[in-house]
Order: sequence, then C-alpha cells, then structure tokens
Amino acid sequence: MRAVVYKDPYTVAVEDRPDPTVQGPLDAIVRITTTNICGSDLHMYEGRTSVEQGKVLGHENMGIVEATGDAVDRIRVGDRVSVPFNIACGTCKNCAKGWTSFCLRTNPTEGMDGAAYGYANMGPYDGGQAEFLRVPYADFNLLKLPPGTEHENDFTMLSDIFPTAYHGCELGEVGPGHTVAVFGAGPVGLLAAYSALLRGAARVFSVDKEPDRLKLAASIGADPIDISDGDPVEQIVDANGGMVDRGVEAVGYQAHDPTGQEHPEMVLDNLVKVVRTTGAIGVVGVYMPQDPGAVNDLAKDGRVAFDYGTFFTKGQRMGTGQCPVARYNRELRDLIVNGRAKPSFLVSHELPLEEAPTGYDNFDKRIDGWTKVLLHP
Amino acid sequence: MRAVVYKDPYTVAVEDRPDPTVQGPLDAIVRITTTNICGSDLHMYEGRTSVEQGKVLGHENMGIVEATGDAVDRIRVGDRVSVPFNIACGTCKNCAKGWTSFCLRTNPTEGMDGAAYGYANMGPYDGGQAEFLRVPYADFNLLKLPPGTEHENDFTMLSDIFPTAYHGCELGEVGPGHTVAVFGAGPVGLLAAYSALLRGAARVFSVDKEPDRLKLAASIGADPIDISDGDPVEQIVDANGGMVDRGVEAVGYQAHDPTGQEHPEMVLDNLVKVVRTTGAIGVVGVYMPQDPGAVNDLAKDGRVAFDYGTFFTKGQRMGTGQCPVARYNRELRDLIVNGRAKPSFLVSHELPLEEAPTGYDNFDKRIDGWTKVLLHP
Amino acid sequence: MRAVVYKDPYTVAVEDRPDPTVQGPLDAIVRITTTNICGSDLHMYEGRTSVEQGKVLGHENMGIVEATGDAVDRIRVGDRVSVPFNIACGTCKNCAKGWTSFCLRTNPTEGMDGAAYGYANMGPYDGGQAEFLRVPYADFNLLKLPPGTEHENDFTMLSDIFPTAYHGCELGEVGPGHTVAVFGAGPVGLLAAYSALLRGAARVFSVDKEPDRLKLAASIGADPIDISDGDPVEQIVDANGGMVDRGVEAVGYQAHDPTGQEHPEMVLDNLVKVVRTTGAIGVVGVYMPQDPGAVNDLAKDGRVAFDYGTFFTKGQRMGTGQCPVARYNRELRDLIVNGRAKPSFLVSHELPLEEAPTGYDNFDKRIDGWTKVLLHP
Amino acid sequence: MRAVVYKDPYTVAVEDRPDPTVQGPLDAIVRITTTNICGSDLHMYEGRTSVEQGKVLGHENMGIVEATGDAVDRIRVGDRVSVPFNIACGTCKNCAKGWTSFCLRTNPTEGMDGAAYGYANMGPYDGGQAEFLRVPYADFNLLKLPPGTEHENDFTMLSDIFPTAYHGCELGEVGPGHTVAVFGAGPVGLLAAYSALLRGAARVFSVDKEPDRLKLAASIGADPIDISDGDPVEQIVDANGGMVDRGVEAVGYQAHDPTGQEHPEMVLDNLVKVVRTTGAIGVVGVYMPQDPGAVNDLAKDGRVAFDYGTFFTKGQRMGTGQCPVARYNRELRDLIVNGRAKPSFLVSHELPLEEAPTGYDNFDKRIDGWTKVLLHP
Repeated sequence: MRAVVYKDPYTVAVEDRPDPTVQGPLDAIVRITTTNICGSDLHMYEGRTSVEQGKVLGHENMGIVEATGDAVDRIRVGDRVSVPFNIACGTCKNCAKGWTSFCLRTNPTEGMDGAAYGYANMGPYDGGQAEFLRVPYADFNLLKLPPGTEHENDFTMLSDIFPTAYHGCELGEVGPGHTVAVFGAGPVGLLAAYSALLRGAARVFSVDKEPDRLKLAASIGADPIDISDGDPVEQIVDANGGMVDRGVEAVGYQAHDPTGQEHPEMVLDNLVKVVRTTGAIGVVGVYMPQDPGAVNDLAKDGRVAFDYGTFFTKGQRMGTGQCPVARYNRELRDLIVNGRAKPSFLVSHELPLEEAPTGYDNFDKRIDGWTKVLLHP
Repeated sequence: MRAVVYKDPYTVAVEDRPDPTVQGPLDAIVRITTTNICGSDLHMYEGRTSVEQGKVLGHENMGIVEATGDAVDRIRVGDRVSVPFNIACGTCKNCAKGWTSFCLRTNPTEGMDGAAYGYANMGPYDGGQAEFLRVPYADFNLLKLPPGTEHENDFTMLSDIFPTAYHGCELGEVGPGHTVAVFGAGPVGLLAAYSALLRGAARVFSVDKEPDRLKLAASIGADPIDISDGDPVEQIVDANGGMVDRGVEAVGYQAHDPTGQEHPEMVLDNLVKVVRTTGAIGVVGVYMPQDPGAVNDLAKDGRVAFDYGTFFTKGQRMGTGQCPVARYNRELRDLIVNGRAKPSFLVSHELPLEEAPTGYDNFDKRIDGWTKVLLHP
Repeated sequence: MRAVVYKDPYTVAVEDRPDPTVQGPLDAIVRITTTNICGSDLHMYEGRTSVEQGKVLGHENMGIVEATGDAVDRIRVGDRVSVPFNIACGTCKNCAKGWTSFCLRTNPTEGMDGAAYGYANMGPYDGGQAEFLRVPYADFNLLKLPPGTEHENDFTMLSDIFPTAYHGCELGEVGPGHTVAVFGAGPVGLLAAYSALLRGAARVFSVDKEPDRLKLAASIGADPIDISDGDPVEQIVDANGGMVDRGVEAVGYQAHDPTGQEHPEMVLDNLVKVVRTTGAIGVVGVYMPQDPGAVNDLAKDGRVAFDYGTFFTKGQRMGTGQCPVARYNRELRDLIVNGRAKPSFLVSHELPLEEAPTGYDNFDKRIDGWTKVLLHP
Repeated sequence: MRAVVYKDPYTVAVEDRPDPTVQGPLDAIVRITTTNICGSDLHMYEGRTSVEQGKVLGHENMGIVEATGDAVDRIRVGDRVSVPFNIACGTCKNCAKGWTSFCLRTNPTEGMDGAAYGYANMGPYDGGQAEFLRVPYADFNLLKLPPGTEHENDFTMLSDIFPTAYHGCELGEVGPGHTVAVFGAGPVGLLAAYSALLRGAARVFSVDKEPDRLKLAASIGADPIDISDGDPVEQIVDANGGMVDRGVEAVGYQAHDPTGQEHPEMVLDNLVKVVRTTGAIGVVGVYMPQDPGAVNDLAKDGRVAFDYGTFFTKGQRMGTGQCPVARYNRELRDLIVNGRAKPSFLVSHELPLEEAPTGYDNFDKRIDGWTKVLLHP
C-alpha cells in the first residue's frame, strides 16, 4: 500500500509499505476512506519530537472494515467506521472508567499511559495516512457509522478534533448560558467554540491572529478577537462587559505573541486573567514534559511559570490532557446524523494521499486558507 | 472589649476596643466563646501581607448571638452559632451558586471577590479574636449549633479549617476507595486527611516533616510520610504499590524543603508526580498573586514554575481557592453531632484571650506540640 | 389597584384592591409590566384546588421596582426585574442548597415546603396579575434585567415556565447528542423541547394532540408526534429507529387520551416504555397528593399505578417537582440577552389586565391558537 | 462437576454436570472457591419466576482462573478473581458508559438488556454454584484479587451484594453528613447501611422486622428500626428529629407488613414519607414487570400504586435497577484490601456445595440467624 511516512524535519514522503494484516484475534483492518492532517502532526513534522524516521503518520482516520480477527464479534467486515485516535484495551482500570486516552496496557513506552496511531511516544503503531490501518481491540475502539458516503467530511472529525474540542469544553465545564473564551482558532479551537455553542453557551469569544481562522469563527457564531488588535483580555472584557465564565486553551506550549515570539505561559496567563472567580479552564492545547527546542530552560523541562497566585486567588479549576474520544463520539455522531452539527465547516482542502507532502507543507506554513486538510487514499 | 490586634511583624497585642454594635438591619453581634489562631494568621503575623496596624485579627469564630438587626428573622438572640470565615451577601451571582468565598459585594477592595474577618485584603472587617464580633448578613452567614457547650472544640473547627480541608478533598475529587496523598500535616492538612477518610478513602498518606504532626496523622488512621526520610513521592509509591488516585495540597507557597529552604513549586511538583494519570488535585494551601518576601522574581509575581508539561501529559485536573464554608458546614456539623467526626483531635492548647501573644509566638515557631491553639475570651 | 381575583370555578374577575406596601425591611414592591396566565392557574380556575375566594392570582411576573424596604441593598428602585414564582427566604437549609422551590420558612401551611404568589396551598401571598406585587426577600429573589423594554415577552418567561421546562431537562439529564421525548406541548412542554435543543439534544419528539401546539413544536425544530395518529411510543420508536435516551413529562395528573378520558398513569407509562434502559425522566407536569376531582379512588389519594416493574427493570431514574427558578434564570436571561434563546415564540395573545377573564376562558377551553396569554397591566 | 440446579418450587439439587469449557476466544473458566446464595435466588426457588428446570443457579461467584480463550490477554490462568454477576460485552453503547447491567449484546431474550449467570430471563448462562463456571468476555468482566486466600469471605461480596448495596446509595445520592433510611436489613439492606456509613453518612436507620438482622444492623453502627414496634416512619422521624435526607429501598415487590401480608407499595410509600423534600431514593430491591403470583391485578402487571402525588410534591428523585458491578468493585476491593471495609460481617453460614439444599431451605424460611450463606465447592 501507499503510506505517508516521516523522513526528516519538514519532510514527509508517500512510500510503498506492506499492507497491514490481522495480527491478533481482536484486530481489524480498516480501508481508509478519509484521514486528516492534524495540528499535532506538525510537532513531529517540525522535528520537535523524537518520532522515528519511517513512521507512518496519521491518527485521524475513518474507513471501511476490510478484515477482522477471530474474536471480533461486534464490528463486521463492511462496516463504515470512525477510528478514535486513542488505542485502548477496553479492560484496564482507566478504560473501565472511560479514560481511553490513558489506557494502561497499549503503550509499552515506560511511564506512558495511552497509545495512538502514528505518533511520537504513543506506542509502536503505524498511522492511517495510508490505504489501510490495523486497529487493535477493534470491537472496543471502532465507532460504527451509517453506511454510505454521506457526511464523510463531518464524520472524519470524530476520530480526534471534534471530541478533543468538546473535551476542552467538558474540562472547562462549559454549559448553557455561559460566556466562554476560547484561545486558539485552529481546527481544535474552532471546534471548541463550535462545541461551546452546541452546549448552549450564551456567547463565545474566539481568539487568534490569523484572519482566515477568525473569519471562520465568526461564521459559526463566535465573536472573533484578533490579538493583533491589542490585549485579548481587554478586548474580551470590553465586549462582554466583564470577565467570562469559562475558558478553553486550544493553543499549547508553542504559543506565539503577535510578533512571532514564543511564550509558553502567555495563553494560560490570559485565561487566568479573563476567566472570572470560580470559573473553570479546559486545556487541550498540548504541553510537553520535555521540549528541547523550547525558548528557555524552564520550558525545556516542561515548566510553565504562569500566574498561579492569581489562579488560586480566583478559585479557578483547570482540567487537562488528551481526549478519551470514545466518551463523546457516539453523541457527536448522532448530532451529525440528525443535522444538528456540521463540523466539516472547517475543511479547506481535500487531497489525494499522494499530495500529502503539499498538504503538510502548506498547513505547517499556515498559508492563508489552509485550515484543515483531508486526505482521501 | 478586649481584642487581639496586629502591631508589627511578629507582634500582636491584646488591647481595649469599643464593643461592636449592630450597624445595619442584617447584622448580628456574636459574643465569642471560642476563636482559633489559624495558620493563615501567621502570614500576617510574619509581616508577609499588607495588613494594617491595629487590625483585630481572627476569622475562626463561634459563640452566642447577643444582638440582631431589625431584618434578621432566622437567627435569634441566644442562638449558639458557628461563624464561617467568609463574609457573604447571600444574594449575588456567586453566593447564589454557593460560592460564598467569592462574594461579589462584601469586599470593597478593587478586583477582589470574597471577604473575611480580620484578614489582609479581605475587606474592612474586624476579626473575632475578641469578646464580640459583628457579623454582616447574619441570617445567611451564621450556622446554628445545638445549644449548650457540648462539642465546643469540635464545632470551633466549622468556621474554617474543617470545611477548608474538606473542600480540598472536594476539589481533589476524593471518593470512596481512593488512595490519597495529602501534602502538609498542619491543621488543615490533618483535617484533609481526616476528611478523605470520612469520605471513604481506602488509604491516605500524610506528608510532613514535623514529628508531632506525623504522630497525629497516624492517630487518625493516615500513613505518615516524613520528608526528612527521603523523597516523599518514592516513599508513597513504594508503600502504595504505585501512584495514588488523588492529591491534596495543604502547604502553600511557603513550602520548605527539609533544610528549611523555600520552594514555591516543590509541593505541586510532588503532587503531579505522585498522582496517577486521570487523577485530580485539590489545592487549599494558599498561593498569592504578589509576594514581596518571596525567594525569587517569579515567586514575587505569584508565578509558580511547576512541571506543567507532566501535569498535562497525565491528564490531571486541579481545583483551587478559598473554601465556601456554608457549602459544607451543615453536613460537617451533623457528623459531629452524631459522633461520626471529632475534629478536636488536633487541639493542642486552649488559652484565655489575654495569652494570645504566647499562642501566636509558639504556633509560629512551630514549637513541638503546638498544633492548634484555641482562645476562649 | 386593579387585580385579577379568583371567584368561583370557571370565574375570575378584575377588581379593586389596596396597593401592596412594604411590610418588612426585605420587601420590595414591583410595578408589574407583564404577567402571564399559567397552565397551573387553570387547576385553580377549574375548581380542582382549595384556593380561597378573592385570592389575587398570578405567579409569572415581571416589572419595575417601585419601592424597597430598609434592608434591601442589592436591588434598587427603578430596576427592571423578573420575579421567580418561588418565594424563598434565601437562608434556610434548602435555599442554601439552591432548592428555592422548597424553602422551609416562607410557607406557613403545615407540612408544605415552598411558597409562591397567588397559588393554592403555597402560602398567604397575593399574585401579580395586578398593577403591583409585594415581593418578600427581594434581594435574594429578584433577578435584574437590562433596563428598557427590549425582550419583554422573552424575559416574562423567566419567572416560571422557561426555567420550569429547563428543570425538566435537568431532572431528565438531557444532554448533548441525546434523543428526547417530551410529553405535552403546552407552554412548558414546548419550552422543554426548546430547552432540550438548547442543551444540545440530537433530536426531540414533542407529543400532543393539539394541532396548533404541534405546529409550534415543529417551528422550533422538534418532531411533532400527534397522539391522535396512534400510539405515541410506536410513532417515536419508528421515527427514531429505537427508544429515546431521555424523557420529559410536561402533562401532569390530568392527562387525557385522544377521546378526552383522564388517565393519570398514561404519560408515565408511555415515558417508561419509550425511554431506553439506563435512561432518565424529568417530571415537571404537576401531580397532587390529594385530588378530590379525580377519576378513581387511587387517583383521589394521589396514587398513580404506573408500570413500576418496567421502570425498575429498565434501570431508569426519575426526578420530579417544582422548579427552583433562581438556579437557572441568570443563565437563561443571558441566553436571551445574547440572542441565543427567544422563548417568546409561544406567545399567542397579549391582553390588558382588564381582559384577564377572556384570557382565562379561552386558554382553559384550549381554543385553537390560545397557546400563551400575557397580561400587561 | 457437581452443580446446584433448580428442580421445582422449593427444590434444588446438587447434580453431576459436564465441566464447562472455553467456547470462544474471550472466555475464561473459573474454578469456584466461594459462591453465595442470594436473596434474589429465592425468587426462583419459590417458583415466582419462569426459570427452567435444570438451570445451574448462582450469580455470586469467585475463584481461580483455570483456563482462558486465545484472545484473553489481561487475565491469566491462576489469577484469583471476583466474577461480577453481570455478563457484559464491554463494547456496546451501554457497556461503554459503564452500564454493564444493561449490556445490549449478551442477553438474547427479546426486549431484555443485561445478562447474568444462572438467573431467570437473564440469558442462557449457567450459574456458579458449581465447581466451575464459564465466564464470557473474561478480560472485561473479571476483577483481579490479591493472590492467596485472605479476605475470601469479604471478597465474595464483590460479585453482587456489596456493589448492589453501594449502588443503592449512589442512586439515592447518599453522601457525607446525610441522614439515611434503609428499608430492608437483609444482606443487601445491611450492606446498604454499611455503604452509607462508608460514604460518610451522619446517621443511618435500618428498617426490618427480623431480630437477628436488626442486631447486625446495630453492630455496624446503624440504628435499628423494628417495624413490629409501630410505624417505621414515625419511629425514624422521632429518633432523627425530622425526616431523613436520603432513602434506600432494599426490599422489593414482595414487601410484607408485620402480619405477613404482601404490600408492593408499602416500602415506597414509607420512603416517600420519611425522606424530606428535595431528597433522593435509591431502589435496589427488585420489582418485576410481570408477577403472576402477586396479590392483586395491578401488581400482577408490575403496577405499584404508591403515593406519587407526594413524591412529586416533595420534589424527590428516584433511581432504580440492577447494579453495574464493574463500576464499583475495584474501589470496594481496595477498601477491603486496606482494612477499611469488612462486609463479611454478615456471613452466618459456610457450607460445602453438597449442602446447598439445606442452605436454600433455611435461608428461604428466614430461620433465625441464617443471614448469608456461602458455599465452598
């Protein structure tokens, strides 16, 4: 089969690889119909992780079940499925509580709970930016979709970024009537704003500096806040008539100020400032324990010197971490099926698999309008 | 009346003050029967706050209602009451949601939500280390106690430290069957360990370096961990056979290592390390937005450079801030009344009001055995 | 002042009454700008309660504060306010937990927790279908609205039926992605369907037999189910491809089958049948402990012989009772202010106070199109 | 192997049966070390179910894993395990939400969600009152226990009645500081009282009429209420100084008054009466949709005409149904391991498997002191 592999910083290639096969009785092989490039793929692409050369990338996958192991009895060959990015065993203590993002058994890496396809440190699993993908514990992991091809570009958001964005709202305790500030209007940030509105928020501010993203934010009913126009906290407080109830972090440790300077603590500081006393903040932008490419020694060790004193004084709560996709994907699928959610609004480009390098390059450079790239093998 | 007032760093005095009077229709005057010295009083005592000279101290108060304003119709003269340290209006947006620790109306200090008796930055309210105390919004704030003198030393914990400790468990999501690490075995830490057990924890580790405190921890069924014996995280993981489910921070920004050196990020680092993936951490040890006396520039600005990357990678949650006492004090009172809780186990000294200076001095110096000091005016 | 008073079964009159005055330091007098006739007013109108002759009716009130008692310090004369139907003290055990619908202090009726304006058994309080209304505990009870006259017909839903309908969804645990069956498409039922969609439901079925109501249900995006067309459970299961996740009861003990026969257990039976295993049901349709006018002896004693065995076997949960309006009205107000909710869609008639008898008569007869009647004094 | 089988009403026999074998790749065979007779086994024993002749009984099982299918990779041969009574697939919509008691895939009976070992209508699965038991979906269902034989009589409560009792407290929202009424002091009722105390209840009333059970209730710190001494509601209200906060139903549809008369609505009526407004009730006593042996026509159809009008007027909530054991058994195991729970207090008899008929007979007759019978094959 053909597959997108990591070569060197800023280089991916489409190469021939052996087709994956059923290796255990709980495996399934999925023929990929759509696979997306994720913002977090860019961490690897830019060489800021330890991902090995030759790794097949891609953790946002969907397709048709092609084969199953002997013990698979819920999923059938021919089923159209979404593949959550988490590879979870379904039977450990964390999976049993619905924390599939912290499965205790699928990642052999020392000290790491949770596995994923095609990702640095997340276990020895190939990704799905390819024609086929092997899915362990298929009955537990795969989400069935209605047959056919309808809603393909909506359903493809179910493997990662729609649930991840929604998880940001869950961790941030976003509910009906709340005012919400979402920092970051990349794909996850946009869907976090979208999720906040789905959950009944009264008003959502979407903070970024890219005009194409801010335009998309406005198109879904969020209030765009351009950090190039000045302090986002002041802008929000002015527009809202006060601080907001809840916040979502969808930027991560590589936060840049308008001049392009990296400030790992900038977004957390802004969230602590703009969220009112008793409020909650959900953090789904990625932070890393080690980041050799960081701007200072603290950041290299994953230390983020944000304004903790104010965080405490305001009595805020903060939830973090990778999303357990299976906790949300059924409900989000049903919203799509019933026409109540349409996350495909952010798709900007659909490319054949062979053009993945172009997709990576343009997405990484944040070429205007390259919001979200889907690959159709 | 006689009252304990702040003079200078490391000096309090007992002086004559005019008796407080009913100033508004919702006020009550409480004749104090017991008032405690709190660990957070020591922040003022040590001169690390901006508290004004002459302020009457004391926010852990109980007594008998002596007089009430015209609009007070629930509380009656003669009622025995516990006075929550929070001064709350009962009608603002935060009070209406039960967040009395962040009342929007009682603290005139710019940018501060929440008021308290006799405390720096918490509004112009005198404290209760005195013969009498004026209580605003008495019907909303006061908790009725059974008449008489029974359980006096238990009930006196209801104004602050028992609910505060319990709030640490609530923020840390401590529930039945959990293993829990509580950092700090001062009065709040000990009651947090006690609360964790009341809430059904399977095993609780109580971390400190003072032998008298560790002995008390053991006496209530917690496992004492002495940081003088080595890395507390290793000690807990060894004893527990792995990381714990939940953590509580009951130390605050003045954390000291065994050599006496101050490390604001030390306890948060240890909690992030010892709590397992998906776990929660409740923070009731105090952190400040500004601390001129801090050890480094970051800490002076309230910045705490803890290991945020690991916090995120482990998918942990953290809740912080001052306790809304009224959310818990009825239930905790009922546990005392029914003989199911006896928080007086930590009382080490009962002094007449006139001996308050001795109490402050010995408690501040952590003289062995001076765990918790009650004053009886 | 002029006021709507209960005379006899099926008779109300508009009569002169003395203007209400401030009777205690926590009172406010509200000049009513809008007051609605509620479906539950019809229980009194039809003579099925013990309401006394001459009682001023009306518990869905809003207006402008005209006067306040000495101890009122949050609400100001001139404020535009919504008056929750619950009269709550704000300081008892139930109010402290946000259960203002079960205030322990405001209803002197033996064995009754909770008070309301102008209602049988809910205390000696006059209603607001009048020019003025006395509001006890004004600071606690009144909700401030933006000044002016904008959104008047939306805000008038905040005193009762919008929060009540929303409470049905809260008790029924309706959340994002759920399929929901709402029985009853009267004003509360319609707003329950509307609230379910606001809370992110994937699909909502609205069950009734009145064409005008079903049309309104369709207009807000619910699927109308006409019980005249056959068994509603079958209709829903067919349309939904299976049972629904959640249910809301917005009918009450006077449920009628399509032939007009009263069946107190009919709606509960249907809900138990149509909600799937593990589902929840919120009940805001009114049931009474005593109903002398009921169809059989069990019902006269408030006994409802629904299919409890199936309820248990399906592992369902059920929440019931009057809504604590203050728990929700701030958030619902903010949804209106931000243009995200417009509950006035169900207003069919606006009448001057003097025409209240016409309003009662037509609403009670369910004259086609008389969905919701507002009175403007 | 030897196994206890149902023969006729009031007759079980110990007979030879073929050893169970691994039939699918996810099966395990458990050699039973302890298996209990459950109160719900008596429904079958007394002939009030449609259980087929020859069915091997027993759903409270624990033992040692003897063999596993090819796809079992978490559980190992030799592991000591508790077998939850629910047979759950681990991958359906209900299992994914932790509702293993309503698994959509393991029970082929039309219209039934949820399966169990050796039970009427719960699927074609043999029970574990035998030397060996086949366990489907072993990795998902089995709970690992510490090796050895320690705590055997405590751990054997983990398969059903300890989690079931605890579930009653969860459904009844029992928390710290609550006063609680538990109706029924059979094994589940006693453990519900015990669980309420573990969860921090302030005071628990345990209602029954059997002196041996009431004595056990007192021994664990509950207040025994003997219905032979008069109305239990009055007794509780008198002792408690008012109604209780929460209730648990651990009796079921075969409730008897002190004269031995069956009253299906009696316990629910008492709970509605004794629980205060805003309170919650957890129902784990069994109710059935059909009961041909019932005392009246309503009850034959599973209809329970309890005082619903008061239930609604008091704004109570009610949760029901079979317990999803896997949601609680890890935490309850850890409480046992750490010496914080000792549910074996209720074991009255330990018999060899061959004496099962004696155990059934004496337990069914409620011979004084036959509280809980364990069988050791």
